[in-house]
Amino acid sequence: MDPERLHKMLDPDGAGTAARLFRAAHHALVAIGTGIVLADSVPSLRQAHGGLLAVLFCLVSAGFAIEYAARCYAAPAAPAARHRPPLRVRLAWACSPGGIVDLLSAAAGIAGLVLGGGDALLLGLVWLCKLVRYAPGLSILGRVVGRAHRALLSLLLGFGIVLVGASSLAFVFEHNAQPQRFGSIPTALWWAIVTVTTTGYGDAVPKTPYGRLLAGLIMVGGILVLALLAAILASFYADEMRRHAFLNTWRVVAGLPFFQQVGAPIVADVARLLRPRDYPAGAVVCRRGEPGDCMYFIASGTVEIRVNPAPLRLGSEQFFGEIALLTGAPRNATVVAVEPCTLLRLDIADFHALMAQQPELASIIKEEAERRLGPAPAAAGERVA
Amino acid sequence: MDPERLHKMLDPDGAGTAARLFRAAHHALVAIGTGIVLADSVPSLRQAHGGLLAVLFCLVSAGFAIEYAARCYAAPAAPAARHRPPLRVRLAWACSPGGIVDLLSAAAGIAGLVLGGGDALLLGLVWLCKLVRYAPGLSILGRVVGRAHRALLSLLLGFGIVLVGASSLAFVFEHNAQPQRFGSIPTALWWAIVTVTTTGYGDAVPKTPYGRLLAGLIMVGGILVLALLAAILASFYADEMRRHAFLNTWRVVAGLPFFQQVGAPIVADVARLLRPRDYPAGAVVCRRGEPGDCMYFIASGTVEIRVNPAPLRLGSEQFFGEIALLTGAPRNATVVAVEPCTLLRLDIADFHALMAQQPELASIIKEEAERRLGPAPAAAGERVA
Amino acid sequence: MDPERLHKMLDPDGAGTAARLFRAAHHALVAIGTGIVLADSVPSLRQAHGGLLAVLFCLVSAGFAIEYAARCYAAPAAPAARHRPPLRVRLAWACSPGGIVDLLSAAAGIAGLVLGGGDALLLGLVWLCKLVRYAPGLSILGRVVGRAHRALLSLLLGFGIVLVGASSLAFVFEHNAQPQRFGSIPTALWWAIVTVTTTGYGDAVPKTPYGRLLAGLIMVGGILVLALLAAILASFYADEMRRHAFLNTWRVVAGLPFFQQVGAPIVADVARLLRPRDYPAGAVVCRRGEPGDCMYFIASGTVEIRVNPAPLRLGSEQFFGEIALLTGAPRNATVVAVEPCTLLRLDIADFHALMAQQPELASIIKEEAERRLGPAPAAAGERVA
Amino acid sequence: MDPERLHKMLDPDGAGTAARLFRAAHHALVAIGTGIVLADSVPSLRQAHGGLLAVLFCLVSAGFAIEYAARCYAAPAAPAARHRPPLRVRLAWACSPGGIVDLLSAAAGIAGLVLGGGDALLLGLVWLCKLVRYAPGLSILGRVVGRAHRALLSLLLGFGIVLVGASSLAFVFEHNAQPQRFGSIPTALWWAIVTVTTTGYGDAVPKTPYGRLLAGLIMVGGILVLALLAAILASFYADEMRRHAFLNTWRVVAGLPFFQQVGAPIVADVARLLRPRDYPAGAVVCRRGEPGDCMYFIASGTVEIRVNPAPLRLGSEQFFGEIALLTGAPRNATVVAVEPCTLLRLDIADFHALMAQQPELASIIKEEAERRLGPAPAAAGERVA
Repeated sequence: MDPERLHKMLDPDGAGTAARLFRAAHHALVAIGTGIVLADSVPSLRQAHGGLLAVLFCLVSAGFAIEYAARCYAAPAAPAARHRPPLRVRLAWACSPGGIVDLLSAAAGIAGLVLGGGDALLLGLVWLCKLVRYAPGLSILGRVVGRAHRALLSLLLGFGIVLVGASSLAFVFEHNAQPQRFGSIPTALWWAIVTVTTTGYGDAVPKTPYGRLLAGLIMVGGILVLALLAAILASFYADEMRRHAFLNTWRVVAGLPFFQQVGAPIVADVARLLRPRDYPAGAVVCRRGEPGDCMYFIASGTVEIRVNPAPLRLGSEQFFGEIALLTGAPRNATVVAVEPCTLLRLDIADFHALMAQQPELASIIKEEAERRLGPAPAAAGERVA
Repeated sequence: MDPERLHKMLDPDGAGTAARLFRAAHHALVAIGTGIVLADSVPSLRQAHGGLLAVLFCLVSAGFAIEYAARCYAAPAAPAARHRPPLRVRLAWACSPGGIVDLLSAAAGIAGLVLGGGDALLLGLVWLCKLVRYAPGLSILGRVVGRAHRALLSLLLGFGIVLVGASSLAFVFEHNAQPQRFGSIPTALWWAIVTVTTTGYGDAVPKTPYGRLLAGLIMVGGILVLALLAAILASFYADEMRRHAFLNTWRVVAGLPFFQQVGAPIVADVARLLRPRDYPAGAVVCRRGEPGDCMYFIASGTVEIRVNPAPLRLGSEQFFGEIALLTGAPRNATVVAVEPCTLLRLDIADFHALMAQQPELASIIKEEAERRLGPAPAAAGERVA
Repeated sequence: MDPERLHKMLDPDGAGTAARLFRAAHHALVAIGTGIVLADSVPSLRQAHGGLLAVLFCLVSAGFAIEYAARCYAAPAAPAARHRPPLRVRLAWACSPGGIVDLLSAAAGIAGLVLGGGDALLLGLVWLCKLVRYAPGLSILGRVVGRAHRALLSLLLGFGIVLVGASSLAFVFEHNAQPQRFGSIPTALWWAIVTVTTTGYGDAVPKTPYGRLLAGLIMVGGILVLALLAAILASFYADEMRRHAFLNTWRVVAGLPFFQQVGAPIVADVARLLRPRDYPAGAVVCRRGEPGDCMYFIASGTVEIRVNPAPLRLGSEQFFGEIALLTGAPRNATVVAVEPCTLLRLDIADFHALMAQQPELASIIKEEAERRLGPAPAAAGERVA
Repeated sequence: MDPERLHKMLDPDGAGTAARLFRAAHHALVAIGTGIVLADSVPSLRQAHGGLLAVLFCLVSAGFAIEYAARCYAAPAAPAARHRPPLRVRLAWACSPGGIVDLLSAAAGIAGLVLGGGDALLLGLVWLCKLVRYAPGLSILGRVVGRAHRALLSLLLGFGIVLVGASSLAFVFEHNAQPQRFGSIPTALWWAIVTVTTTGYGDAVPKTPYGRLLAGLIMVGGILVLALLAAILASFYADEMRRHAFLNTWRVVAGLPFFQQVGAPIVADVARLLRPRDYPAGAVVCRRGEPGDCMYFIASGTVEIRVNPAPLRLGSEQFFGEIALLTGAPRNATVVAVEPCTLLRLDIADFHALMAQQPELASIIKEEAERRLGPAPAAAGERVA
């Protein structure tokens, strides 16, 4: 099989049928594998079907071994790896976190067989880590926690000091009344952590008045820590979302044929000039016959270009209204938002100022305009409005 | 009965007496119905009054059946359905989520009778879902959760991996010490979920040192997850509120007679030009005799126009001060905020720039001005300031 | 005693010695009173010192009765009540929430005596409500909750539906296994509320697999509700803080002698023109001999005007640098922030534009300037920079 | 040993090898000391190794005594204390919170020996406080809590009123059913605090219907308080982060040789003119041969200046692109972000406006330019782009 096609099939965000099927099979295999490990830990099930579970376990491992081989084989087909020697790319992939998790997943079966009986099948839980590849949001959360790590570590240190202090005091107050529960600081520490996180199992409860006062204080301290934690993370998350939104605008602009040849500084300028604007479903973005004073890039949502004979629909990362920037003619179609959408608007004045500053960009745009307005029929959606 | 009047009566946000009465009856019926279901589940009450409860249950169902018929009959009177065939509108309504809940509510009585005894009356709990129609805030919350679903799903995946991992470790650490509580991973999973959400029933508590260390870690992990959840939702909620505020401005502008004929693009431009400004109660917004340099739209709150003989009050979505934009004459009345209010201010310069760009809008405004300043007495509140 | 002086003494934010002493006595009385009520509820203490506690209770009530009389007598001295008939002002005060709480506080002693024995002294807990007058932050929190009430009620409705639904399901799953704990929906409701708020007493715990699955789901649902609640309140609180900051700017401007005679619309314009800027401690705000291009109002913090012979200190709501706006002369002193402070900066260009638009304001300012630059020594801090 | 070198070694943020080694030793000593205190509280360990633990305890104390002496000796070498008499500086240090904690840490050993046996070793827990010096984030959190203290105290007051009210009601409802658990208000208070913080030990649980209704209400009230707490802190934390970011910009600008001589007002103006902009890794910031229209200060991250023969890397608080502001020549190098970074951009127009307004600044910059463009090779990274 062709590495290119294989790579597309294995791509976590792939849109083709093969990619979808592979994704479904992968997730099913992880679910089955986890089910096997869970079932094997139940004594009655293991006694009744232990052999069957071990066989299934090895089959799942074999499945992941095949995936490992496929991913390793297809690694050189990744866009970023085109011009590097295949062997080095494969080695680099094998040493990446994803590659290591895949190797462990593939090896779980062999390890299970070798170690035999007991709780060897627990090794299969590494399979759950394979799902991380399919959850891009986790990397955002990881970045938020990473950026906030100083504040979080400081909070954790304060938390630890309070915890040890509280358990020492609880030990002093309670160890005569309840030597079983508060007989030493490490024992009292268990009570303190259960209390400060407001879990409250109830297996260790202070009985003396001072112990209860202390408990009340650290419960309130616990919800203060939780609130501070939420405050810190909310602040950093909102920041990360803003950064994400700017980089998205950047990506939309950088992905347009207009701007691909002129390089990052102009892209940055254009990204800064774009004004995001929200439209409710059904709103008319522009009307046929109006003067065209701006162009739009679609950040999210779908718009409908009402041209004859059939309306066109444009989605995320596409653009419209650029003809007006080049010809000065009025809009040649009405554009309507078919679902709530966010458009990035580039004003004609900003656009012309940009062209005056950047002769390189101006010549690219003129060539592009000639191509589009030339005799060949323009690509759908690129010649409207 | 006229479908129009019926539709107004059934409108969840209706302001008339009929609508109010219907709302009260509806909520009372839901409350009574829920009370019946709850009472029927109590063995002593069911033994004593089982028959009465069943009869009341059927009566409540009958009430909802009447409501179902009325809503179905009145559906074609909805503003959005004016020009479509009534039968199709009724069918569309019956297949909408609201229609299905209403059908199930009406059918609960029959199902209860058919299934008879046992816990059949539990079907009546579908009635609670009828209240969702009266809680517009739930749809905002639903939209927030919907927009955040990627981040939430990723967090949930991480949560699930931690949960399974923690219960496997707890199983390893504790299953010898407490075979009853931690004898298999599924059993330990119960402990893990109770612990990580900081519920802490106390029915399963680790006893070994490693088990307690693990418990402490996942309790802290649990409050971290809660804080992350709050952070994600706070970020998306603030975003949704901003979007909501912009769409509100849009709605206020789009609802004005001035702008209704000129279409969405101008509305968007005007909405962008409006500057929201908060006034405390008692603040003077403008004074008689001052030059008029802007007009105001009321986003929320009430203002008093101090004209002779009696002052006028204007509320949400009304406007004032527009005569100055048209005639250049000084303000002819003082305007005072009678409660804290938010006004949207449109500057005269922005307004004239808009008119120069949009001859279509200019002619509409001139006609409007002539109508208002004409011989016929202008509508209250439209000719002041 | 003079009502004016009495009113100042009773003012919750009063700065004089009498006000401080009264505040201390008031808080001490509330603390003692609450202590009496708490002590009286302890059987052993009541048996030993019941009579003493009852006497002390009546003494505290008598103290509050005197306060009630004093507040009633002093009510007409409030600034807002100067021109109204004293009797009507006193009646209005007696009917306000504060007046009613004070009346109940004064009457608690009589009620305690009349009702005698039992738990009559519990009436004294109304005294705690007297503290609300001294916590201005509570009114902000109340306003936040008030503004967010739609969203909160919707969330509460969703919460209630989930609660009833969950307890019905728990009843279905568990009532055979644990008829004691889950024998009816109302009984199961107790379990549901304890679980969904993650309190987890552990007195009712599901035992069947389905019951546990349901419990896990509603625990996660509970932390989702908590996170949504935090998200809603955070959004509205940040909004309220912004509004508060704007109204503070407004209040600073409106409190200046410059602007007091020109009325609200100009104040609003000036408030809009002011740019808040933060300075770290030690930063030089402006330097002697520099051209003066703006004036500053102090929103918070303290600055030092380095004039001979001794430097002056200006604090919150004072202003400096206005001479430069009037004379065009260079700064006549260096100004340094002595603690981190926020200044509101008004640019000279904005100020002159404002004066051109508002001849009324211009003439006031010129009179003010002549007064300050006249032969009489200017007030400290008003003639610098 | 030289006080200067000693001071650098003791600096919590010191970068040298000595500072690192000292930090490691310090943290290890705190960890060991805490471990000793914890171990000594365990009866079995104390019986077996009591003497050894006491000896180790004194050794750790001795270590901290040496640190105390060293810090005291090195105090006059702190940059802020250069020109003051050494004895006074040492006394001031000894009276600062850090000095007091260090003294107590050093004295713990002697106190332990003098008090002997019992729980004397608990005094060693003061050592944990020494770690606060190494957690700068705690001071930010402290500042947030400090700024929010009004709102927090008000919330705490409301919380306290609810708590006492709830426990009184619980006492009324439950004290007949459970005299053991709810026999007095102070006893019921324990239940109330355990419930309202959603800890839920389960040692006191209401049994009457009214008691349970009350419990449900205060559980919901508890999560509302937690959400309000998170909302307040999130708002103040975001505010503090903004202030922090502005002061960071200020610090970057104030640290540049350009601006050090012109004083704070210009620094404030420049800080206001800077526009932070995020660049993804790999983005081209500017290109060789382009006209230079701005200069950049690096707020965070690293950029690579692609000059011959070897590219240069610039990091936080460095700057580039300033030659273009002075000579008008095109960029002489391409600059690429090697990791995601935030640059502060100063536009050429703003810069020239600033120079026109500030002749003092203009002459400094011209001197600087002549120095850099003069015959001597400029410092690396200062003559590029």
